[in-house]
Amino acid sequence: MENNIRDVIMIGAGPSALAAAIYTTREDIDTVLYEKSTIGGMAAITDKVDNYPGFPEGIEGMTLATQLEKQAERFGAHIDFGDVSAIRSDGRYKVATVDGQDVKAKAVLIATGSDYKKLGVPGEKELYGRGVHYCATCDGAFYRDKTLVVVGGGNSALQETIFLTRYATHIDLLVRSTIKASDVLQHELQKYVAAGKVTVHLQTTTDEILITDGRASGVRVTEKGEQHDIITDGIFVFVGLQPNTAFLEGSGVELDEVGLVKTDQHLMTTLDGVFASGDVRSGATMQIASAVGEGAAAALSIREYLDEFDRNN
Amino acid sequence: MENNIRDVIMIGAGPSALAAAIYTTREDIDTVLYEKSTIGGMAAITDKVDNYPGFPEGIEGMTLATQLEKQAERFGAHIDFGDVSAIRSDGRYKVATVDGQDVKAKAVLIATGSDYKKLGVPGEKELYGRGVHYCATCDGAFYRDKTLVVVGGGNSALQETIFLTRYATHIDLLVRSTIKASDVLQHELQKYVAAGKVTVHLQTTTDEILITDGRASGVRVTEKGEQHDIITDGIFVFVGLQPNTAFLEGSGVELDEVGLVKTDQHLMTTLDGVFASGDVRSGATMQIASAVGEGAAAALSIREYLDEFDRNN
Repeated sequence: MENNIRDVIMIGAGPSALAAAIYTTREDIDTVLYEKSTIGGMAAITDKVDNYPGFPEGIEGMTLATQLEKQAERFGAHIDFGDVSAIRSDGRYKVATVDGQDVKAKAVLIATGSDYKKLGVPGEKELYGRGVHYCATCDGAFYRDKTLVVVGGGNSALQETIFLTRYATHIDLLVRSTIKASDVLQHELQKYVAAGKVTVHLQTTTDEILITDGRASGVRVTEKGEQHDIITDGIFVFVGLQPNTAFLEGSGVELDEVGLVKTDQHLMTTLDGVFASGDVRSGATMQIASAVGEGAAAALSIREYLDEFDRNN
Repeated sequence: MENNIRDVIMIGAGPSALAAAIYTTREDIDTVLYEKSTIGGMAAITDKVDNYPGFPEGIEGMTLATQLEKQAERFGAHIDFGDVSAIRSDGRYKVATVDGQDVKAKAVLIATGSDYKKLGVPGEKELYGRGVHYCATCDGAFYRDKTLVVVGGGNSALQETIFLTRYATHIDLLVRSTIKASDVLQHELQKYVAAGKVTVHLQTTTDEILITDGRASGVRVTEKGEQHDIITDGIFVFVGLQPNTAFLEGSGVELDEVGLVKTDQHLMTTLDGVFASGDVRSGATMQIASAVGEGAAAALSIREYLDEFDRNN
């Protein structure tokens, strides 16, 4: 740190930022991470991560998060709690507003991730990871030969319902009003409906997640005005993504149509010296492996940027 | 498998293909990997991997490779030894020639990696990972406050020499004829030469790696006709990359100017249904984390491709 100017500020301390910090700090690049809620991000609150490569029998999300944190700190990463409310350029430097205070750096990595939109019903939060899920690729395989409920009526809800039929024996699809998905997907879904694998419930709201022995066991719904319960082994909710990018308004960092950060092939955003990786990036797969891989790649781009920066100083 | 047609053939069984296979097989996509030499690829022959996120104290390359293999096999991946000499399209299908036999699949993943070019001198092969290295980002940090020899005279040799000065107290740079690098890099290198951190040896060939107690301890060189020894703690060789893409000649899969496979944002090559990930891909970082991340992302693209494929069948 020269005159309180950091080499790089990373916003967020999920898997992508922690992976990036392992790389930058191992190369003696002064790195600070600001996290406003949970170190390890969504990984930390995931019950079991089965598909992060390197752990043959899977690993608890919290354990993986802790190991990523330890590895970054071993090389010298500073992880602070703090809420970044804005970033801006100041001459050649970047400034992040952290809990109301300005922090200056040569480069910034945006790795704030995206949240899955929630239904906001009783039982949902408590049962996350214990019968309530938001990612079919991550957790679908736990439901081989089980029954499922899927909530949602858009493209991703239909796509994931079709995907989940490879595991589940039967799926109840709960659609608040009517299905709003592409014709191709609707046509495809009909095959599963005809085969008795999927039952579609239109004009159906999800009122509550039911609990038995600490796990989700069913859903209380109101279907065309009538309340009833659907017993199930698990619930997948696909009602949209909420990228954590509100703080970027007016910063010059361009977002795509759903609010994810646009990047070039070097993972640089439209603002010079500001990079993005992981679930917040346009094109993200919402997978820990990819978030980590992009974090490493972003770190190499940041190193190149800093070399250039120092040469021109 | 329907009529002996595979869902996906993966060429190579390094970290990228193994990560992809973890994803595809976990989703019941029938997957076979063909490897012609070492399962785990370059990772398997790396002494210690310090920067693969998830292992705070690092992990032996061989252990990581075995764990990736176990994880892929746990979900049902078939890993076979076999040399793929060509791929081609056959109607809607792809055909790989494996040890002279044709194998048919709906999709193909190219994950054959790249090799570092070797000097081909005595001691080099035996001491790989024990004082002889090819990747500064991977192994440079092991040489804090040590002396190094770097071999090479191109852009990457100069770039990595400058990078390694952040760890090493002194570097001898061995250049076979003269330096062939950009003016910017040559100018930058001069600063380190002036500061006594780097000594450049022009018209110098590397004849042999010297060994003491099972580790590299020096280099025997011929400098302007005179043979002498340079004592050092480690040797980094940067004389180029050799992508494993010779088998793609005439396949319709386009390569970039150094022989790496071009891909689009979905990691698809210029041949429909053929994907590429990891060190063989144009733009690759030569890092295990990124290779693994791309493998996961490629698997998701392959799943989408197969869904579309089956819908149109």
